[in-house]
Amino acid sequence: MPILSQAEIAALNETASFNRWAGFTVVKAQDGEAILEMPWHPNCGQYAGHLHAGLVSALLDTACGFAAVTAAGLVVTSQMSVNFLAPAEGDSFRAEATVTKPGRRQVFAESRLFAIQADTSTLVATATAVMVPIEGKPDPKVQN
Amino acid sequence: MPILSQAEIAALNETASFNRWAGFTVVKAQDGEAILEMPWHPNCGQYAGHLHAGLVSALLDTACGFAAVTAAGLVVTSQMSVNFLAPAEGDSFRAEATVTKPGRRQVFAESRLFAIQADTSTLVATATAVMVPIEGKPDPKVQN
Amino acid sequence: MPILSQAEIAALNETASFNRWAGFTVVKAQDGEAILEMPWHPNCGQYAGHLHAGLVSALLDTACGFAAVTAAGLVVTSQMSVNFLAPAEGDSFRAEATVTKPGRRQVFAESRLFAIQADTSTLVATATAVMVPIEGKPDPKVQN
Amino acid sequence: MPILSQAEIAALNETASFNRWAGFTVVKAQDGEAILEMPWHPNCGQYAGHLHAGLVSALLDTACGFAAVTAAGLVVTSQMSVNFLAPAEGDSFRAEATVTKPGRRQVFAESRLFAIQADTSTLVATATAVMVPIEGKPDPKVQN
Repeated sequence: MPILSQAEIAALNETASFNRWAGFTVVKAQDGEAILEMPWHPNCGQYAGHLHAGLVSALLDTACGFAAVTAAGLVVTSQMSVNFLAPAEGDSFRAEATVTKPGRRQVFAESRLFAIQADTSTLVATATAVMVPIEGKPDPKVQN
Repeated sequence: MPILSQAEIAALNETASFNRWAGFTVVKAQDGEAILEMPWHPNCGQYAGHLHAGLVSALLDTACGFAAVTAAGLVVTSQMSVNFLAPAEGDSFRAEATVTKPGRRQVFAESRLFAIQADTSTLVATATAVMVPIEGKPDPKVQN
Repeated sequence: MPILSQAEIAALNETASFNRWAGFTVVKAQDGEAILEMPWHPNCGQYAGHLHAGLVSALLDTACGFAAVTAAGLVVTSQMSVNFLAPAEGDSFRAEATVTKPGRRQVFAESRLFAIQADTSTLVATATAVMVPIEGKPDPKVQN
Repeated sequence: MPILSQAEIAALNETASFNRWAGFTVVKAQDGEAILEMPWHPNCGQYAGHLHAGLVSALLDTACGFAAVTAAGLVVTSQMSVNFLAPAEGDSFRAEATVTKPGRRQVFAESRLFAIQADTSTLVATATAVMVPIEGKPDPKVQN
């Protein structure tokens, strides 16, 4: 599976309806690293009004996936473990991911989510992901 | 923290803007168990058009949380581990959660996500969650 | 990779020096399920004298591995998530594992650890595992 | 719970029978960080002769625990997620842990395991851990 460029990954991001709805922007995607941002918006809250765990997870997973794509081509996530360190309260959010190990059969990555408010950036969650490269063209059967 | 009834949990579900947006419905929430459903809708897709990992995670986490709330009152999730077994492709999705161990300081639960299409229900993901009970009234500082 | 019989899995268990040292016994291994037992012995304690988290993890992982081997042949574990529900205090310990999904590229399983004392059996930990089938003969490069 | 010094943590390490058996040595434990080492020995193998996943997990968990103890006093692990990146083959092994977030109710840490052979050090596994501080004196009821 060919490795994708940052422009191709930004285009891939736009093909996912949920990513568009949530406002994910690819800030960086190259050399085994990816940075993803989204602004807060009012439909993303859990019951106390912070960013919902589903969006925390979506940002962390997508950042891992895009980091993996720069190293191994298209992947599907098979496992994600998320630690929620603090309430995700901010004007915007930034997920930073790094590939830990690119393999032929599996790609490992980890990511961190920061909540940004005025001038402060707070680490609010961390994740690890196990992904599996998929063969051939973008496959309608891939999962993530 | 008082234990909540199913009606109170359904009301709690409605206070979360993301749950309303995604169309989460509380089908069951009592005795350490919870069932949550949502219909497919077009803004929830990943790039191949299946349910996004963020929504898979949101359903699994919320179901664990509601199961915990029936046993221990309000909780905040501190850890979630998700295994993605198969593409989440369906007309609707159902998450079923069970409390594994309700503790004073921590509540453990596990959940399974089924994709429903016509008459078939397919297991597409599993999760475990570690949650911490929060004291006092619903707290604006809680995380999930 | 051929599926192994319970007798072959019991023999495989004996080839692992740590399993022999710890006293792992294969009670069952067939049809996607495995049961493993070990007696308490004094070199297995953590600082409060309960079963060490490393042995809790070893039992849970090995049980998942043997369950997988009945469904998919030899595997290597790539991810394990363990929840520690209660102190692992007992005269012996029993891990029960079930394959959640056997795949060509990945096998998912889950397991539970019980501490046994006199007539009572207490659930003390749960785990999920992601494993990858290995090709060919038992490979000196396999990990677990 | 008072924070422990490196000398106290080294003494704590010696109170765990499994740590003594496996030959764990505390190389560092201060300021939210810990380094733990053990030599390879023949009773620690899995079936292909590499370090058993149980010992990989034990080193990663214990290093997280000792890092946490420098920041929050005695803790008990409630969740650990381990990713196995490569076969753990070496003459000795070194686990390095860092506290990600020390909290009053929960402490989060992460760790990496390196296999050391001649002059090379290879990253073979990573872990995250969620731990809960325990109150009062070293408690015979603590788990890890």
